[in-house]
Amino acid sequence: MSKEDIGITVSKEADFSEWYTQVVLKAKLADYAPVKGLIVLRPDGYSIWESLRNTFDEKFFKKGIRNGFLPILIPESLLGKEQKHFAGFNPEVFWVTHSGENEIGDRLALRPTSETLAYTMYSKWIQSWRDLPLKINFWNTALRAEIKATKPFLRTSEFLWQEGHTVHAIKEEAEKEVIEILEIYKNTVQDELAIPVVTGKKSEKEKFVGAVYTTTMESIMPDGKALQMGTSHFLGQNFSIPFEVKFSDKDNVEQFAWQTSWGVSWRLIGAMIMVHGDDKGLVLPPKVAPIQVVIVPIYKSDDAKNVIFPKLNEIRQQLESKKIRVHVDDRNELTPGYKFNDWELKGIPLRIEIGPKDIEKQQIVLAKRYNREKISIGFNEIEKISTILDEIQKDMLEIAKVKAKQNTINISEYSEFKSKIGKGGFFNAYWCGKTECEEKIKEETGADIRVIPFGSENTNGKCIYCNEQSKETPIFARGY
Amino acid sequence: MSKEDIGITVSKEADFSEWYTQVVLKAKLADYAPVKGLIVLRPDGYSIWESLRNTFDEKFFKKGIRNGFLPILIPESLLGKEQKHFAGFNPEVFWVTHSGENEIGDRLALRPTSETLAYTMYSKWIQSWRDLPLKINFWNTALRAEIKATKPFLRTSEFLWQEGHTVHAIKEEAEKEVIEILEIYKNTVQDELAIPVVTGKKSEKEKFVGAVYTTTMESIMPDGKALQMGTSHFLGQNFSIPFEVKFSDKDNVEQFAWQTSWGVSWRLIGAMIMVHGDDKGLVLPPKVAPIQVVIVPIYKSDDAKNVIFPKLNEIRQQLESKKIRVHVDDRNELTPGYKFNDWELKGIPLRIEIGPKDIEKQQIVLAKRYNREKISIGFNEIEKISTILDEIQKDMLEIAKVKAKQNTINISEYSEFKSKIGKGGFFNAYWCGKTECEEKIKEETGADIRVIPFGSENTNGKCIYCNEQSKETPIFARGY
Repeated sequence: MSKEDIGITVSKEADFSEWYTQVVLKAKLADYAPVKGLIVLRPDGYSIWESLRNTFDEKFFKKGIRNGFLPILIPESLLGKEQKHFAGFNPEVFWVTHSGENEIGDRLALRPTSETLAYTMYSKWIQSWRDLPLKINFWNTALRAEIKATKPFLRTSEFLWQEGHTVHAIKEEAEKEVIEILEIYKNTVQDELAIPVVTGKKSEKEKFVGAVYTTTMESIMPDGKALQMGTSHFLGQNFSIPFEVKFSDKDNVEQFAWQTSWGVSWRLIGAMIMVHGDDKGLVLPPKVAPIQVVIVPIYKSDDAKNVIFPKLNEIRQQLESKKIRVHVDDRNELTPGYKFNDWELKGIPLRIEIGPKDIEKQQIVLAKRYNREKISIGFNEIEKISTILDEIQKDMLEIAKVKAKQNTINISEYSEFKSKIGKGGFFNAYWCGKTECEEKIKEETGADIRVIPFGSENTNGKCIYCNEQSKETPIFARGY
Repeated sequence: MSKEDIGITVSKEADFSEWYTQVVLKAKLADYAPVKGLIVLRPDGYSIWESLRNTFDEKFFKKGIRNGFLPILIPESLLGKEQKHFAGFNPEVFWVTHSGENEIGDRLALRPTSETLAYTMYSKWIQSWRDLPLKINFWNTALRAEIKATKPFLRTSEFLWQEGHTVHAIKEEAEKEVIEILEIYKNTVQDELAIPVVTGKKSEKEKFVGAVYTTTMESIMPDGKALQMGTSHFLGQNFSIPFEVKFSDKDNVEQFAWQTSWGVSWRLIGAMIMVHGDDKGLVLPPKVAPIQVVIVPIYKSDDAKNVIFPKLNEIRQQLESKKIRVHVDDRNELTPGYKFNDWELKGIPLRIEIGPKDIEKQQIVLAKRYNREKISIGFNEIEKISTILDEIQKDMLEIAKVKAKQNTINISEYSEFKSKIGKGGFFNAYWCGKTECEEKIKEETGADIRVIPFGSENTNGKCIYCNEQSKETPIFARGY
């Protein structure tokens, strides 16, 4: 197999889309399923999702949120109970019409999201204020038929996600929950995936169908396009009224409850690939890497091998005892150079090289994946590797922040907006708050309001489109 | 709310089926979804599944098995590629025919099991002997339309399970994998759920459609019916040939691979409920209990409360520091008696009672759920609780073993078989090995061959049905 066959054959700069696909496939994260729009996750891809799941679970649990299970089939009649919500999803719903040879009366939808089903159950489970707050999260998949070309992690007809659904007696408590969840999302994405995000509200036009308002976190990708990284919705009583999610308060008066829903999906993995990857392939932040350190022995003779392996195993054990996920590449038939390329393609954060000369010098060579820096450390300094992994994690976030900042610009003239939008980026621009202007901008430039950052209220400017007094300063961008 | 409303209103002995349903619903493990045949898992139910998942994951990982993700939709053409397999599942498949308003050409099946999809992918991923063994497990749900009445965890049209799929270069290695997985299943069910199982092979008639042979673990339930607890299949080359799962061996000769598949489902939770539950409700083995110890303070005055709570919190911290999952029931408006019933219904393995008299005596009262025994221990003996939980776990398995043994009988006359089958039980009986006799027995008694235990080959007896020379001694029983 030639180097060309296994390596990435286009540069990230030259053809971002093709580069992305090659990284996903060649790093063996995912593959296309036989049905258009669907993908399969291979172990290296799925383990990133598992790592995120474990982190979120720990944080959710501390907030009194527990996991549950909902079936995937929702009757059409139930899905249609909240009309706006239904209209929003209807065109992309997969319908089950038969079981075996039998036709099903009330067609069954494959869950595009589970509000309608969850709240049907909640209305049975909640009677009194004592049953509140009720906070359940569901790790599952959602299905929304995707007509555009499949893009692993970004545009697929079935996607892994979590959907949380909480119910509260008090409006303010529900609104606080919305924000606290968004904070958990933000911290996790920054701390685990080393990706900076901007948090704020969606505009009326862009909010979740059925929500009172939607909060969101958005990131800018290296190609200048925005990616929605997660949303947390305040549903008010929009669902509790049609679904009769009611409780008796302490005075025994029946009240409609206040609700939230929120979710992140495997898009986060797509973002991680795009933000950190380079021309050699994937670059994994250490915290989510299935293998954090790979050890590659360098030898030509069996004698050399016999000298290296005892030391190498000792180092492996030292690292494992520190809970570092380590792998020894002992494939005999492959050259060190081949192995270097292979592990760089797979994005393993840190490579240890150890050959006969290193044994003599009582040292190992460390090669960092993200900046391709090489350093040597002594056999007595192995414990430093934990710290080095932490530093890599932090450095990757800092670099991503700098790039995101470079891709964010303040725009005050609409002509400038139009001339620069083709190159992409987050555009901070004054806006009057009217959907009409938002729609015109979308029509003329392809840019949406991605997020109205918290604290961006501003009445001192003029709307980029209509020149009337501004209300806030949203971020406009073309999105995925 | 009266005691009747929340407690179990029938005895396990008098109406096992109704008792089971009440335990599932009233212990808040699960509830019926709006679509017939489907259930929702509430947090207390789902957390048992999560606990099992974590245990299996740890054991699988040590064997080099990793997790992946497969989409739920399989094209009809693909599902039909292995004909026997397809015929077996066809009557229970849910079919997706539309996405939005559009009709789909090749109808899509909701995964009844994923062999066909997994092996389509595997055939792309495997080229050489270096790619083997390939071992991937998938935690997902399978859908098989269930026409009989819904029975939570036992008979539902969608169920949580794991399906593992491995590929090997060598036949013997695949067969070894089949057995090692069955061993993991057996140990986990015994150690975590405290349920004894019998392992062995399925008969030709009862094997998985498409397998060369199926190994199984079976348990006997308190009502005398058998429950299949998990299966591990040797697929031989039955799928590798039609799906072209091939590899180049070390001599560069192309070979068809050898495969296995294996799974356990949330039936295990159903078995746990049936085996351990009693007239007061659920009884959870400590290892899988979401709460292992519940502390109920007993007080009538605020003064007493103020004396109890500091000590109670101290005990809680002591237990938490030992990684024991503990909950303090500090609900002010409910009596201790109500709380006792509530936690007994929910099956919490150990209850700590602490009142003013206990404070005086420097002791707490422990109430074990499984045998309702009460003992007192001193404040200086709190650390014993870990051991007590371990003992409960072991005792529950021992008791279950005794009951299973009582329900297992050797039968040598067919007249006895017929007269006793109504009362249920595992019947050890000689069999000639012919499907004809097996079918006749099924027809006349409703009993299947559940499992042919390993080592039960026996040519010294006469077939219970035809009186010809026996080949082995299977376990016959009526099943779920």
